[in-house]
Amino acid sequence: MKRILLDCDPGIDDALAIALAHGSPELEVVGITTVAGNVGLERTTPNALSLTEFYGMDVPVAAGADRPLLRAPDTASTVHGATGLGDVVLPSAKAEPEPRHAVDFIIDTVAASPGEISLVAVGPLTNIALALRKEPRLAEWVREFVVMGGSYTRGNLTPAAEFNIGADPEAASVVFGAPWHPVMFGLDLTHQARATAEVRERFAGLGRLQDELLGPCLDFYGSNRQYRDEGPAIHDACAVAHVIAPELFTTVPARVDVETSGRFTSGMTVTDFAPEAEHNALVATELDRRAFWDLLTDSFHGVARAMTSANR
Amino acid sequence: MKRILLDCDPGIDDALAIALAHGSPELEVVGITTVAGNVGLERTTPNALSLTEFYGMDVPVAAGADRPLLRAPDTASTVHGATGLGDVVLPSAKAEPEPRHAVDFIIDTVAASPGEISLVAVGPLTNIALALRKEPRLAEWVREFVVMGGSYTRGNLTPAAEFNIGADPEAASVVFGAPWHPVMFGLDLTHQARATAEVRERFAGLGRLQDELLGPCLDFYGSNRQYRDEGPAIHDACAVAHVIAPELFTTVPARVDVETSGRFTSGMTVTDFAPEAEHNALVATELDRRAFWDLLTDSFHGVARAMTSANR
Amino acid sequence: MKRILLDCDPGIDDALAIALAHGSPELEVVGITTVAGNVGLERTTPNALSLTEFYGMDVPVAAGADRPLLRAPDTASTVHGATGLGDVVLPSAKAEPEPRHAVDFIIDTVAASPGEISLVAVGPLTNIALALRKEPRLAEWVREFVVMGGSYTRGNLTPAAEFNIGADPEAASVVFGAPWHPVMFGLDLTHQARATAEVRERFAGLGRLQDELLGPCLDFYGSNRQYRDEGPAIHDACAVAHVIAPELFTTVPARVDVETSGRFTSGMTVTDFAPEAEHNALVATELDRRAFWDLLTDSFHGVARAMTSANR
Amino acid sequence: MKRILLDCDPGIDDALAIALAHGSPELEVVGITTVAGNVGLERTTPNALSLTEFYGMDVPVAAGADRPLLRAPDTASTVHGATGLGDVVLPSAKAEPEPRHAVDFIIDTVAASPGEISLVAVGPLTNIALALRKEPRLAEWVREFVVMGGSYTRGNLTPAAEFNIGADPEAASVVFGAPWHPVMFGLDLTHQARATAEVRERFAGLGRLQDELLGPCLDFYGSNRQYRDEGPAIHDACAVAHVIAPELFTTVPARVDVETSGRFTSGMTVTDFAPEAEHNALVATELDRRAFWDLLTDSFHGVARAMTSANR
Repeated sequence: MKRILLDCDPGIDDALAIALAHGSPELEVVGITTVAGNVGLERTTPNALSLTEFYGMDVPVAAGADRPLLRAPDTASTVHGATGLGDVVLPSAKAEPEPRHAVDFIIDTVAASPGEISLVAVGPLTNIALALRKEPRLAEWVREFVVMGGSYTRGNLTPAAEFNIGADPEAASVVFGAPWHPVMFGLDLTHQARATAEVRERFAGLGRLQDELLGPCLDFYGSNRQYRDEGPAIHDACAVAHVIAPELFTTVPARVDVETSGRFTSGMTVTDFAPEAEHNALVATELDRRAFWDLLTDSFHGVARAMTSANR
Repeated sequence: MKRILLDCDPGIDDALAIALAHGSPELEVVGITTVAGNVGLERTTPNALSLTEFYGMDVPVAAGADRPLLRAPDTASTVHGATGLGDVVLPSAKAEPEPRHAVDFIIDTVAASPGEISLVAVGPLTNIALALRKEPRLAEWVREFVVMGGSYTRGNLTPAAEFNIGADPEAASVVFGAPWHPVMFGLDLTHQARATAEVRERFAGLGRLQDELLGPCLDFYGSNRQYRDEGPAIHDACAVAHVIAPELFTTVPARVDVETSGRFTSGMTVTDFAPEAEHNALVATELDRRAFWDLLTDSFHGVARAMTSANR
Repeated sequence: MKRILLDCDPGIDDALAIALAHGSPELEVVGITTVAGNVGLERTTPNALSLTEFYGMDVPVAAGADRPLLRAPDTASTVHGATGLGDVVLPSAKAEPEPRHAVDFIIDTVAASPGEISLVAVGPLTNIALALRKEPRLAEWVREFVVMGGSYTRGNLTPAAEFNIGADPEAASVVFGAPWHPVMFGLDLTHQARATAEVRERFAGLGRLQDELLGPCLDFYGSNRQYRDEGPAIHDACAVAHVIAPELFTTVPARVDVETSGRFTSGMTVTDFAPEAEHNALVATELDRRAFWDLLTDSFHGVARAMTSANR
Repeated sequence: MKRILLDCDPGIDDALAIALAHGSPELEVVGITTVAGNVGLERTTPNALSLTEFYGMDVPVAAGADRPLLRAPDTASTVHGATGLGDVVLPSAKAEPEPRHAVDFIIDTVAASPGEISLVAVGPLTNIALALRKEPRLAEWVREFVVMGGSYTRGNLTPAAEFNIGADPEAASVVFGAPWHPVMFGLDLTHQARATAEVRERFAGLGRLQDELLGPCLDFYGSNRQYRDEGPAIHDACAVAHVIAPELFTTVPARVDVETSGRFTSGMTVTDFAPEAEHNALVATELDRRAFWDLLTDSFHGVARAMTSANR
């Protein structure tokens, strides 16, 4: 069983990523840290708390950075709704967040079990960058580091930049510059993970999980212009899926540099696959769609079963 | 019959573009201007002169800028060979270049026939930018402006920049900022125009054109690593083909901004297809391959026939 | 007697620079070229024509670039008035501008007398940059190149950039990157050339030159906030004065690089006086104020005398 | 009595700033935090510990960031020597650094006494930026924030950038962008604080403080080329002096923006004194030299006396 620490900004696809991690028998979620991103930190932290309670998880949630390293904050609330979960309003959580800042929670958790924690970041990389600067050995201590962000062709925040990287390019530059080899799940990969009508049919029978969360969230998410035809891309879950089952993905060694100074290209992950480039990352390029949705469906059923038995 | 003025940096695919323009019964080539690019100006001008004599063309060749607007000069001589034409050595031309500078030749030619000249640029855009700054009305006076350069996904000079734009980003910025609507043939399109083995078989029977130029040029060009599998991309000919037969191409309105200040992205053509973006260009996205190669083969046969009759 | 070609954007201090050049027995003005700067080209060209007729000069005036190399045009009309000459309205000139573009006029004039022409630029450097790109040998062919622009401490367009350089940083980058050694008259020097009340008293007795031009121009110019205390800085005349009497100035070898990509510093002339820097310019640092104003007063009297005799 | 927390990178002038703070009867030093700067963190932390023991201070020393926010680390060891204290080798300290990271030490200390702590930063601003991002309310909680860094004319790391800002421009951008009003002591001010021969005579009679530290440090520091003529500039002590006696300085409201993207100007503090600029800082412009050196001499005598009595 792998232990996973998830840094996120829920966010609809974050909600699915958390469910995937919780429902997988291969993973133990040792903590969730939040960051400003899809919506502000004043929403992502309560969302993380509400989601973990909704799923029946017993896991610490630590709040992190409320703005990017250098830039002014921006959000993706047109995609995720004003609350971050579309039209869904979950009950307020009873639990409080961890007293520690996300940066310290990350450092302490990874330092306590060197080589054992899979760190997965699916929001802007502000917390991870701050943690690396406060404790550079974080890069050695993680078991693996997986990031949802970037693209090697086109972006979604701008034609050049994907949202998570474009929201905090300087943080991303710190993270890709550190001496570890992130596995990057950019849009080229995550746009292969569309929640099509066929996929969504498989979520029937998930009870409250489907009726109160997945269904309305995906309706909202899928109504976004960019997704209208093929269903929304479930970006964040891809990164978690790689921790569970790396064999679902083709990954290719590459050099990833984050543009921080371009006028039109700030936040772009400039990706060089040339053999002579000094590779610093593994970039996911191909998804085994069938196996991916099998994995998600199985995990979601695990979550749904646990929710049902807890309610009895 | 359309009148075409071709700004180029021969260069192997430039040689094919010139042949296409000359061999097409739809086009009259009113002039060729040269610029530093694939190789230095001290090669591109003699190459243009030699090629026009080899093809039997009677057309003025005017030399232009020997370096980019701001940047230090660079070349693509690993792709095009030290001379610019692979291993081919054509006889030195008897003709001299035009006394006028390319910038003046372009301005004068277009000004003399407003609305009638198709200006096609298939090298770095230095001459065109200088001409626009010297005579801003150039943008109104051309019949159309077609450019081979850029990409809306990935580059070939760097992961972000295509060679022609990356060689002189500031010139490209001037050109895409002018009040005309360039038709952009970037790598996404031109990589659909591969001279495969099957294509090259159709060039048999072109006599000296094939034996002394096309054959050895394409052998050299196709040996480049990036092209090994599918045959070399005949970039420049696509732009000329669009003047002859626009129906061979799908083009999409877009906003194209040229990055000049990025650390890793300088020379990128940042292309926004969003309906709300202020469109300033038409971007070619799809090629009718069969019709394209029919057009090229027909035109090349026209050149070959003329060469044969001239030699009698 | 030195031959001077003056590239300018009149402009109040340009008007004084032209008068200085014309009135000096050491100089022959072989041409004036205009550029957009203090006001638009549609004002600077007529202003140059009107001024030369007002002064009784018989000199060609060639119009140049109507906008910067890359940037959107801007003006300094709050400093120079909407017409460029404060409240002064000179009679429209009878003469027409040269048929040639300024860029060609510069190249032709300098090429015709290699080693003999002092080229002085006191506006944005667009024309000079275009000329260098069209004819790189210009840099070898001038006798000397003197530029009013820049600063080695603080700017006036922004805290970092002086107006002439900040209005077209890319052109300035081309110019300071060319293989000549510009003599740079930046604000550090030109702010030593203030037309104080004491100085202006010496202009009494200049007749129409004073009453119809110098007086009202300097009243207008001196009312600008930056100049209120000590009188306006007569920037452009310093560059011309250096051609006449270099001994009035201390100049120091330096490396000057023009910032083109800064967010807050674009157009700054970054000036390195360190002995180990690769020097590409001479930077004027100290002015012999007394001798400078003697020179100007003498030359202005020369202009005034000629105007009087011409009117008889 | 004011309580001061000093973030520094000792460094010779840091050593003097610590002595000034310790020797002043107006100040209580509540902590010292270290950062990589003049030399690496592996030297600045031991140096801070050794200096505090040498001075007889009982104060926590907390180690901070070992590299800039984004950039590769650089040092000023040509100015401060390989150890950071010229040729001086102090005994290794007996004390250990604080267990907390400097970032947490700063946040905790300031949070514990809101409105009471004077935070003074005299090295690169990495720790302060990290602290602001981890706890944005730091900006409200300090009594005042004083920084040695920057310049409103020229730099010393490059012609545009002063060392502390140029070593970590992104951190400085965070710090000057936060909602507080730093008092900036840039080179324009600190170059007025030269330890001339006359000044140094006043340090005679300081016993071991002079013989074992000040004397050899200032000999080393003063031998640097930039200082040869007038004695070394005691930069860091100016910032501390302002906490003790703000009346020694003229300060002017200004807008300070830190350039992070220039090619030649990265790390410049672009300073706009215009009344209409949105002021975010107070910039020190004039020093009362006599009173400044009186203050330093008095404080150093206080340190020397305490050292002597402790040794008995």
